[in-house]
Amino acid sequence: MTISMGSYHHNVVLNAQAESKQPNGDGSKMKMYNSVGPNPRVVRMFLAEKAVDLPLEEVDIMAGVNRQADFLKINAAGQCPALELDDGSILCEITAICEYLEDRNPNPPLIGATAEEKAETRMWTRRIDLNICEPMGNGFRYSTGLKMFQDRVRCIPQAADELKATAQDGLRWLDGEMAGKTYVVGERFTLADILLFGFVDFFAGVDQPIDETLKNIHAWHGRVQARPSAEA
Amino acid sequence: MTISMGSYHHNVVLNAQAESKQPNGDGSKMKMYNSVGPNPRVVRMFLAEKAVDLPLEEVDIMAGVNRQADFLKINAAGQCPALELDDGSILCEITAICEYLEDRNPNPPLIGATAEEKAETRMWTRRIDLNICEPMGNGFRYSTGLKMFQDRVRCIPQAADELKATAQDGLRWLDGEMAGKTYVVGERFTLADILLFGFVDFFAGVDQPIDETLKNIHAWHGRVQARPSAEA
Repeated sequence: MTISMGSYHHNVVLNAQAESKQPNGDGSKMKMYNSVGPNPRVVRMFLAEKAVDLPLEEVDIMAGVNRQADFLKINAAGQCPALELDDGSILCEITAICEYLEDRNPNPPLIGATAEEKAETRMWTRRIDLNICEPMGNGFRYSTGLKMFQDRVRCIPQAADELKATAQDGLRWLDGEMAGKTYVVGERFTLADILLFGFVDFFAGVDQPIDETLKNIHAWHGRVQARPSAEA
Repeated sequence: MTISMGSYHHNVVLNAQAESKQPNGDGSKMKMYNSVGPNPRVVRMFLAEKAVDLPLEEVDIMAGVNRQADFLKINAAGQCPALELDDGSILCEITAICEYLEDRNPNPPLIGATAEEKAETRMWTRRIDLNICEPMGNGFRYSTGLKMFQDRVRCIPQAADELKATAQDGLRWLDGEMAGKTYVVGERFTLADILLFGFVDFFAGVDQPIDETLKNIHAWHGRVQARPSAEA
């Protein structure tokens, strides 16, 4: 396989708060195709919170390796990350990957320990995904990232500014909803926080800073940034 | 409460193929806030496949009742459907609602019976959600639906045509991926089919017909349309 450029394995940062290091599911051969960008970071942070140690194989998305034939055999959608399971099958889409990792490694729960907890996390995760991450990511792809993305996906440059504004609308709404809460769903730290953090933290460093008036989001960002998993 | 206009309970269509009628979780008080549109239909179809009988309370979204104070107390995001749980708490976002219904009523499995099946369904569900349903729905809101939506959410009319084209790109990609498959994930009928059907079927009737060249999607649409749950 000729996918990786400088392929190597490295370990994700471990969360000292997790009860014990989980050795990748008892001899599992799982590995993750990894790259720069917010999406793989969400999964790495999730793994770090779980203290799950997974080999990472690097894919050079800047050079477009993920859109070339060898990688498209792995993920026909041409996106990173992708999780290779024990049987060699490939799992894509970060929320589906995190759900699977939780199914395999239930503790500490980052989605939920009960049906009701899981439901609440999934509700907020999707709200964040659709109302913040998607317009934020597309706002970037259609403007600052246009040169990288214009030959990879359909780009809509005339929508970039309004998409960024839509993401800010979502953040402003969430800021109000988070009054008095420690994390997105309340006291539990969950996938919803990890997803939001992965995107907000990345794009704040590019072209979409968090508005100063969003005090609850700023305070929350500081709390998440302080977790060891934020280094993953 | 003054939310519903002509509030009444009615039962969703039952799937005769399901093993037995499940009486809403043994005396559960669950109910669903329902309306016209593709999102509530996805949940109604999911319920029908499960043969779960749930009271529906109608919300007149055409009149904007869902954006008024009484409903915003129920769902701060102002969207339908919303599921009221036994303890009175409210669950929103259709994929989270369906996951919860599956947790409560595992059979027949519409997400999956194993971690691997669930993962595959969730991967395809998210691909369909982000690459087809979202641009399709927003393409509608920003053009044909503009009059209804312009005072409710930020609209981007200049992106409408390209968003519709993006949804068609997604459908065309999926058409290729579905060669030889009965349903989206293969032989299993899942949430991924229900989500896709709810959106494609609705918007084909409005302003986004399925391209004639997408033979696999057309054949799949016919198969899903023939299920009793499609009447829900």
